[in-house]
Amino acid sequence: MVFTPWCAGNGHQYYFILKSIIMKALVYHGPGDKNWEEKEKPGILNPTDAIVKILKTTICGTDLHILKGDVPTVTNGRTLGHEGVGIIEEVGNAVSNFKKDDHVLISCITACGKCANCRKQMYSHCETGGWILGNTIDGTQAEYVRIPYADTSLYPIPADADEEALVMLSDILPTGFECGVLNGQIKPGDTVAIVGAGPIGLATLLTAQLFSPAEILMIDQDDNRLNVSKTFGATHTINSSTENVTERVMKITGSKGVDAAIEAVGIPATFELCEAIIAPGGRIANIGVHGKPVTLHLESLWDKNITITTGLVDTSSTPMLLKNVQSQKLAAKKLITHHFKLDQIMEAYKTFENAANEKALKVILTS
Amino acid sequence: MVFTPWCAGNGHQYYFILKSIIMKALVYHGPGDKNWEEKEKPGILNPTDAIVKILKTTICGTDLHILKGDVPTVTNGRTLGHEGVGIIEEVGNAVSNFKKDDHVLISCITACGKCANCRKQMYSHCETGGWILGNTIDGTQAEYVRIPYADTSLYPIPADADEEALVMLSDILPTGFECGVLNGQIKPGDTVAIVGAGPIGLATLLTAQLFSPAEILMIDQDDNRLNVSKTFGATHTINSSTENVTERVMKITGSKGVDAAIEAVGIPATFELCEAIIAPGGRIANIGVHGKPVTLHLESLWDKNITITTGLVDTSSTPMLLKNVQSQKLAAKKLITHHFKLDQIMEAYKTFENAANEKALKVILTS
Amino acid sequence: MVFTPWCAGNGHQYYFILKSIIMKALVYHGPGDKNWEEKEKPGILNPTDAIVKILKTTICGTDLHILKGDVPTVTNGRTLGHEGVGIIEEVGNAVSNFKKDDHVLISCITACGKCANCRKQMYSHCETGGWILGNTIDGTQAEYVRIPYADTSLYPIPADADEEALVMLSDILPTGFECGVLNGQIKPGDTVAIVGAGPIGLATLLTAQLFSPAEILMIDQDDNRLNVSKTFGATHTINSSTENVTERVMKITGSKGVDAAIEAVGIPATFELCEAIIAPGGRIANIGVHGKPVTLHLESLWDKNITITTGLVDTSSTPMLLKNVQSQKLAAKKLITHHFKLDQIMEAYKTFENAANEKALKVILTS
Amino acid sequence: MVFTPWCAGNGHQYYFILKSIIMKALVYHGPGDKNWEEKEKPGILNPTDAIVKILKTTICGTDLHILKGDVPTVTNGRTLGHEGVGIIEEVGNAVSNFKKDDHVLISCITACGKCANCRKQMYSHCETGGWILGNTIDGTQAEYVRIPYADTSLYPIPADADEEALVMLSDILPTGFECGVLNGQIKPGDTVAIVGAGPIGLATLLTAQLFSPAEILMIDQDDNRLNVSKTFGATHTINSSTENVTERVMKITGSKGVDAAIEAVGIPATFELCEAIIAPGGRIANIGVHGKPVTLHLESLWDKNITITTGLVDTSSTPMLLKNVQSQKLAAKKLITHHFKLDQIMEAYKTFENAANEKALKVILTS
Repeated sequence: MVFTPWCAGNGHQYYFILKSIIMKALVYHGPGDKNWEEKEKPGILNPTDAIVKILKTTICGTDLHILKGDVPTVTNGRTLGHEGVGIIEEVGNAVSNFKKDDHVLISCITACGKCANCRKQMYSHCETGGWILGNTIDGTQAEYVRIPYADTSLYPIPADADEEALVMLSDILPTGFECGVLNGQIKPGDTVAIVGAGPIGLATLLTAQLFSPAEILMIDQDDNRLNVSKTFGATHTINSSTENVTERVMKITGSKGVDAAIEAVGIPATFELCEAIIAPGGRIANIGVHGKPVTLHLESLWDKNITITTGLVDTSSTPMLLKNVQSQKLAAKKLITHHFKLDQIMEAYKTFENAANEKALKVILTS
Repeated sequence: MVFTPWCAGNGHQYYFILKSIIMKALVYHGPGDKNWEEKEKPGILNPTDAIVKILKTTICGTDLHILKGDVPTVTNGRTLGHEGVGIIEEVGNAVSNFKKDDHVLISCITACGKCANCRKQMYSHCETGGWILGNTIDGTQAEYVRIPYADTSLYPIPADADEEALVMLSDILPTGFECGVLNGQIKPGDTVAIVGAGPIGLATLLTAQLFSPAEILMIDQDDNRLNVSKTFGATHTINSSTENVTERVMKITGSKGVDAAIEAVGIPATFELCEAIIAPGGRIANIGVHGKPVTLHLESLWDKNITITTGLVDTSSTPMLLKNVQSQKLAAKKLITHHFKLDQIMEAYKTFENAANEKALKVILTS
Repeated sequence: MVFTPWCAGNGHQYYFILKSIIMKALVYHGPGDKNWEEKEKPGILNPTDAIVKILKTTICGTDLHILKGDVPTVTNGRTLGHEGVGIIEEVGNAVSNFKKDDHVLISCITACGKCANCRKQMYSHCETGGWILGNTIDGTQAEYVRIPYADTSLYPIPADADEEALVMLSDILPTGFECGVLNGQIKPGDTVAIVGAGPIGLATLLTAQLFSPAEILMIDQDDNRLNVSKTFGATHTINSSTENVTERVMKITGSKGVDAAIEAVGIPATFELCEAIIAPGGRIANIGVHGKPVTLHLESLWDKNITITTGLVDTSSTPMLLKNVQSQKLAAKKLITHHFKLDQIMEAYKTFENAANEKALKVILTS
Repeated sequence: MVFTPWCAGNGHQYYFILKSIIMKALVYHGPGDKNWEEKEKPGILNPTDAIVKILKTTICGTDLHILKGDVPTVTNGRTLGHEGVGIIEEVGNAVSNFKKDDHVLISCITACGKCANCRKQMYSHCETGGWILGNTIDGTQAEYVRIPYADTSLYPIPADADEEALVMLSDILPTGFECGVLNGQIKPGDTVAIVGAGPIGLATLLTAQLFSPAEILMIDQDDNRLNVSKTFGATHTINSSTENVTERVMKITGSKGVDAAIEAVGIPATFELCEAIIAPGGRIANIGVHGKPVTLHLESLWDKNITITTGLVDTSSTPMLLKNVQSQKLAAKKLITHHFKLDQIMEAYKTFENAANEKALKVILTS
């Protein structure tokens, strides 16, 4: 798209046209280098696209990984972000579920709805979608975003919704629920350990309670986050920097170990901790984004009848979780600790990068 | 029990008594040291016991592990063996499912039927049973064996059964089926890789076909076993000593990988091969007995939505498999390559230890 | 057994012997005819038996069915009752999980633990057990009861337990949970209708919340019970004697119908109501004890992808539910409205038979 | 579309244009009244449509129901038929999976892929699709058909496919498999009864064997169809017009009844037969299209732990079944007994209507 100032001299109109094709976005320029800058506003490329004006967005731990240079698919010039709620600005002619001015929740997963993986509800591995927002295509930390396959990648927002709470449904709540709770097969009466009390661990803690486990043990190194865990429903907290976690877990479980151990950190030590505390017949559900291999102790686990799962979120549970947030069974808002205007996003990143000192969980950016 | 020859001079009666309390058994005397020797015949210790006269037994790969000294729970003096069919000699007063002279199949797993794990059908982790035969109590490579919890650890044998075929049901067929096929969630249309074409891999190959996968890829280093695999129903065979397995699998599967990869060897290289060839959404089912940790490549698997399972067999599928062997849907006998008399067991071990040269799969020992 | 006073003149000893062999029990003598009377105290018949002294018991709706003559397997002379907690008086020599003086919860289902059905956890259809207490053998509305297969039909009671609350675990809570909630596949976000707000419907309402459905609609003719439902967690109540239930349900569900409809009454009208309000893809779980056939409207249901289940409780969930009652996640005691001494049982029946007027749910009888 | 003869006088071109907008179709004109007649050729209405030239089609039992006037949604002027393979003539601009000249399998179920039901893979209840072909929109018994939502309602046909065999995949094989085999939860070792040996019952018999049941009992009144059943893999056949079916089933199953009973007729008597022969814990899977209610004997089934399912096919299994037909594990072609040219369709209906006399199963119509 080339901008041609056909009406120079008419200040107001000129400004209006500029606004319509230039926007602000948080752009990645290589490891450690990001900027809130002007960028061309996205337009419809395919008949299944929608253009969404961002109302609220947030920052994910994955964005920090990208900024460390850990995600090679993200290249210079990419707008970051894969979470948010917004308002439809324009839809392609094959979009039938949404129209201009609809308020929508953006899923972190883009799903075509017609490939073999989408037909199995494994949207995370959509052959032409999956996690692409803020990764291989421009994302949501911007004034506008183009959403491919809008009909199957956006969710309608009820009229009376608390849209701030719904931002937690773009990624963090379905990820905790699907990769942690469902994969971990949490059920009434279970004893569950969640390793990591960051935002994703806490999202898992919240959604695990939908299945009424008997005990939820929260394990972290940060006393503040462990204290928060208690207010979120943890029955036990263990500080792994000051306690022998395995001993403590075995004491709590009568030497059996836990029915489910959920890894929500992404480093070898925490995954191996899960291996150490799992009971025979138990499930280890990995949520963490790992950059290195881990050691799997098959010499002790081979006969223990355990199940280990990995997974990117499919967001197939989003409509159900949205229903629960709406009915206030799921206190999604508890995860939000800080608020910024969208154009304060550089400052918001600073806060999020110093989460421990700032006692930050999720930040909300409002346009 | 002390034997006192109270009737010396009466040859026949003397002989009879001796026979009733002394038997022959294959006894472990430390790493590399086993012997076919006289041993006291077992008697009823608990009201739930049965004494079974062995009719047919076999040797398991696990017995070879024990003889290498790899299984520390097996101590000097232990009779080896956890497979076999026999005839009931005597039952304790709390045994109600069986009586003297019944022909029975011995399960490699002893199950009390009343502990928390047995109530979940996880008999492998019975709190006072599990795999104890030829491990922590005397086993089946003997003329007689004591079976604890007989009602829930033995299976009745139909009158017209081929008892030789049924020996394959003590361990190898339920292990392949439960730990490989069921844990691997094999279903019609799947592409399955089985790594290892030894007896347990072949038992998995046989039982996998109960769920009609579209393709079964058999991977091994031994061309003879690969050839056998073809006659057992493999659609593709890959010799891992001469071919690049990952490349070949990717070619066969259109670069997707397999829906299920079943590890039936027990070493790090074969487990890591399973990690390399699994498709997104796939299952890795471990059957192998591992002595060392393996490397789990979470840096590439964390987002692939895969499931890894481990497990000792519960033998909960034994009655169903027995029905299928009886109706000849499951060609259990194909697994048997060699026959010996029970008192030739030292020779049988030699054959089994040189399985590749001898082209041996399972050996049958008949009393 | 005939009592012979061999030691007349020794008052104390005479009295002691009498006490040991005569007890009081609520005995059925045909339709409408029951009596609290002297009866011989039960003794051990099989090595797997236990004799339990009743501490607390209750009356079930099924007992009223029996007294109407609707259950032909119950014959003249039978002691009624299949619920209760007690203390072990004596065990047979094959009982290993329990010993004299242990406090135990009695399951309404007797399970041998070794037949084909028990091996599938379908204890309700145990080949020599199932629901036999107070049916084909003497039951728990007595000072003592003989429990066959004690190891697999009794549950240990924790030291600090509220034993009154645990009486709800003999039948009513596992029945509501297994036949209603599990068979109805209740899951987070579901809309559930429970038809019948009597004790079993309310037990279903309590246990359904372990899976966090979004809405629970309670349907009954009795306003008192509907009001109680609200305090138990119902989100909507519908009085079927004054409202058009189908219309109301369709209005609440946006004309879709409910995801699960649970029948907890046992008459044709309530089952057909479930058929009328079920959504495509939904589940109808029957709990009610039916005496007559019902009309299944396959002409409208054949293409609606629904699932209908029936079932007697297996009590396989009892240990999990007990854990939840102990941790006070399951407010079992809310179901108890009236208390009596065991020897006031005739009066307790009167109260229970006039449940609507008496606003009675469950009555507790304490020895 | 209005036809304007802009080039009168140019005979060839004129004829060509006529051909392109007029076609032949089998049109319903009310109960008992159908005709093979000229009709306007369909065109693209929505960007997700495809126009398919029919290569092969068939007639379904449902078409006969329609012609009796039993399906009120089918109105005068409707082209019948919901099965077939064809070649793409034209696609709308939002269709991405297919292009002109692709050979395709037409699913009897039209699925938008984006509504709540499609997102649950319950395509049969697609909010704007489902079974609409030959019902609420024109169907496949014509030279051309318009397929809405082509991307999610058509399947690509491999180059080397036997297209005649694939016609069996439009409806009959996925219906037998999903509504009968999957809903009936057929598994290795099961004893299964299929009531009705017509095309749909036989399709169920073929696909049931993908799960290796131990016995399959085929029940019908027609000896020819029972004989065919034997060649398709039935282990037992029972003629319900000459034998007491319940007695015979109980004899075969040792008085237990069958694990799964599949209703493939659609009348009260056959459904009630399923109720009579089902074992405790068993499943009754309804496939039949019912026009009347049936009697559900809850007075005997309430405590038998059975599951009853109904359902229209979702065709989610079509890709897997297609793979099995291609690899010749599923002998789809066995279902075809008669062949006609497409313009002999009136004669083909006569044959199909006299199926018993004609020994007809499925007829193939080739354009």
